[in-house]
Amino acid sequence: MTSIHQDQLRIQTSGRGFTELTESARQFAHACQVHQGLLTVFMHHTSASLILCENADEQVLRDLEGWMQRAIPDGDPIFRHTAEGPDDMPAHVRSVLTASSLSLPVVSGRLDLGTWQGLYLYEHRVAPHRRRVSLTLIGED
Amino acid sequence: MTSIHQDQLRIQTSGRGFTELTESARQFAHACQVHQGLLTVFMHHTSASLILCENADEQVLRDLEGWMQRAIPDGDPIFRHTAEGPDDMPAHVRSVLTASSLSLPVVSGRLDLGTWQGLYLYEHRVAPHRRRVSLTLIGED
Amino acid sequence: MTSIHQDQLRIQTSGRGFTELTESARQFAHACQVHQGLLTVFMHHTSASLILCENADEQVLRDLEGWMQRAIPDGDPIFRHTAEGPDDMPAHVRSVLTASSLSLPVVSGRLDLGTWQGLYLYEHRVAPHRRRVSLTLIGED
Repeated sequence: MTSIHQDQLRIQTSGRGFTELTESARQFAHACQVHQGLLTVFMHHTSASLILCENADEQVLRDLEGWMQRAIPDGDPIFRHTAEGPDDMPAHVRSVLTASSLSLPVVSGRLDLGTWQGLYLYEHRVAPHRRRVSLTLIGED
Repeated sequence: MTSIHQDQLRIQTSGRGFTELTESARQFAHACQVHQGLLTVFMHHTSASLILCENADEQVLRDLEGWMQRAIPDGDPIFRHTAEGPDDMPAHVRSVLTASSLSLPVVSGRLDLGTWQGLYLYEHRVAPHRRRVSLTLIGED
Repeated sequence: MTSIHQDQLRIQTSGRGFTELTESARQFAHACQVHQGLLTVFMHHTSASLILCENADEQVLRDLEGWMQRAIPDGDPIFRHTAEGPDDMPAHVRSVLTASSLSLPVVSGRLDLGTWQGLYLYEHRVAPHRRRVSLTLIGED
């Protein structure tokens, strides 16, 4: 029997950087008590996004952020949407290039990620923000 | 009881740029009369794509397009696939970097996007094209 | 009646480049014998990813790879995570910029891709790797 389960996470970020959501997603998948299914994570903002990335060496996330800063520089004179700050338009471009929704398999009752795969909220604004992320699990007993 | 609903949108674009699909997606979600679920939008082309982006200031989309033109220039001598025009290969790269499918939550009978979140078809070819986008809603009463 | 079907693909890559998965996905969708639904493909790694790209001219994939090499160079001195080789950190950035999950419509019993749309595993590491990809189909008779 197929059923649908939903929940929301409210995440207070500390500014530009990463908040790991893997454990929250795992717990939700477990609590739904389905045998198999699909968990879709959705970001309700356009200046923060979702990624799956290596979770073993923290330097990986720092290098990713370094690449982003060079490819989409804050205060780039190409941008005219500057009223909300030099990091706002770069945050929109970063969000478009990464993920707003990610769908993850649930197998034998648990979230089936790769060994080194972590799920992260990627805050692109420099200032701390309160972010809403929703979880939708479509599963079967 | 879980059910699946599908529909297609046929969009005539006016060349490179954005066509907002938010209202079409909202109407479809509403017409399906499900209480909760997941709406997946899919782009059936490889030179146009989907994005979620800020819908308050039109300059955001223009700046996004400006960044794309600089990062993936038309007529870039690095590209050898040029038979379909100088904007064809850039259109494929842009499509790969943005989204071909996006899955959006439906909560309490309506599409649950963020306040400033608009869903857009992003046409990457310079000439107008006719594009097919499909909608799949998996929902529960 | 809605049902959920899952399977896994084990792909041996020959190093950086593309392995087409379209036919495997089509066969799985067909074998599930559902009338309509959604097939979600998921990559269980952070240095390989999924894309939908033109499948008519092989030069398109080569040009995409050329763009990636210039935008995210191997051995870039900006990267400090170098213990696993000069192509490891670029592989993580490429994976973040492309897709880890893709959700494709199934209509009238078959995978409904665009005419020129191929599904590819994109291996970003230079050395061959064994990769796990999972398929989850949520469908209705």
